[in-house]
Amino acid sequence: MRELLLLSNSTSHGRGYLDHAIDEMLAALGPVRRVLFVPFALQDRAGYVARFEARMASAGVEASGLAADATARRQIEAAEAVFVGGGNTFRLLKTMQDLDLIGPLRERALEGMPYLGASAGINLACPTIRTTNDMPIVEPRSFDALGLVPFQINPHYLDPDSGSTHMGETREQRIAEFLEENERVVVGLREGGWIRVSGDRAELGGANGARLFRRGAPAEERAPGDSLDDLI
Amino acid sequence: MRELLLLSNSTSHGRGYLDHAIDEMLAALGPVRRVLFVPFALQDRAGYVARFEARMASAGVEASGLAADATARRQIEAAEAVFVGGGNTFRLLKTMQDLDLIGPLRERALEGMPYLGASAGINLACPTIRTTNDMPIVEPRSFDALGLVPFQINPHYLDPDSGSTHMGETREQRIAEFLEENERVVVGLREGGWIRVSGDRAELGGANGARLFRRGAPAEERAPGDSLDDLI
Repeated sequence: MRELLLLSNSTSHGRGYLDHAIDEMLAALGPVRRVLFVPFALQDRAGYVARFEARMASAGVEASGLAADATARRQIEAAEAVFVGGGNTFRLLKTMQDLDLIGPLRERALEGMPYLGASAGINLACPTIRTTNDMPIVEPRSFDALGLVPFQINPHYLDPDSGSTHMGETREQRIAEFLEENERVVVGLREGGWIRVSGDRAELGGANGARLFRRGAPAEERAPGDSLDDLI
Repeated sequence: MRELLLLSNSTSHGRGYLDHAIDEMLAALGPVRRVLFVPFALQDRAGYVARFEARMASAGVEASGLAADATARRQIEAAEAVFVGGGNTFRLLKTMQDLDLIGPLRERALEGMPYLGASAGINLACPTIRTTNDMPIVEPRSFDALGLVPFQINPHYLDPDSGSTHMGETREQRIAEFLEENERVVVGLREGGWIRVSGDRAELGGANGARLFRRGAPAEERAPGDSLDDLI
């Protein structure tokens, strides 16, 4: 029975680290008050762990950082809950692959250990990282990820800016290109929003809603509080 | 003796397809008036070839599209010049790899066949595609690309927008993450600009200039007309 909390972003504009989501995080943790933090999406892992630990301490939760060494698998196996921090998705996935942690983390999360994540940490929860916004700064051995949900998420989803003169692809165009090559649903999750999955139930939470993209169909809006059970 | 024209973008805001760069394209082609167009970055290859052919015809240049079949290698070997169109860099690279065209195209371009490209077509000219802005919608067998220049280019380079409330990484932050993992120079090439390489000489052209990023050094501005010989 999956217990997932998938946050589009860890920091909302004008607020502190995880402030917008802390209540929902505590709810998703249930009785658990000890979290293993995965800092691999940033280069400065120690600094990232310290920042997360401090934020959690002020909410009454004990946190520790996953060490990238031979004990990593045991740390995952013993974890009561995991939070995967944002940063660069390619770096995160490659590090998890290099440490052979994809299988163990997937198994624990599907068993019901609460899995929380933000940004790159929710790309990792998808079947593949093919809908990340990140630059491919390192080369993972495959784009396959944890597959904790059957759909793809595009975090930090941005609506097209009709006033822009920039000629790079809009986010919507990028997702349309994904759908040319892949048949999977994509949830464009705006900043401030999250997806809460509990077993076979999924609901959109937070602010700003989401936009759903499917091959051959018009995009569809979902509002905070809307069910996403149809995607599970 | 390389002859490269590397365009940040194929269409500038408010202008027609390739209008901003057509004079420089003709100069880079020298006496050549027949170009092989590589349309693999878009799904609609036939439509893309037709658009390029029409644009080139109006400039007195004959164009044809590279067919993705068993004749592709011979088409590259026989080409007088190549233009690689923009779109999705991962799709472009994967298609080139699947057809075993990376080696043959590299060889021709290093021999001196003019290589022109825009956007994804200039990511392909770099050592790797690790500084693309594109979504990883398909999985190439490796991120290694043609390596026609020894530096990386980030096309459509965008300066940070101090008024933005969006919390996704700025382009500069993404390139800083690249430099955490890779030692290579990155040229952030703004829209409207291009790099013209002729043998061991390189110059910045077009509009808006470029920003150079190196590990452990402050970013550096280069203006249109500035030499880039130090990068070659």
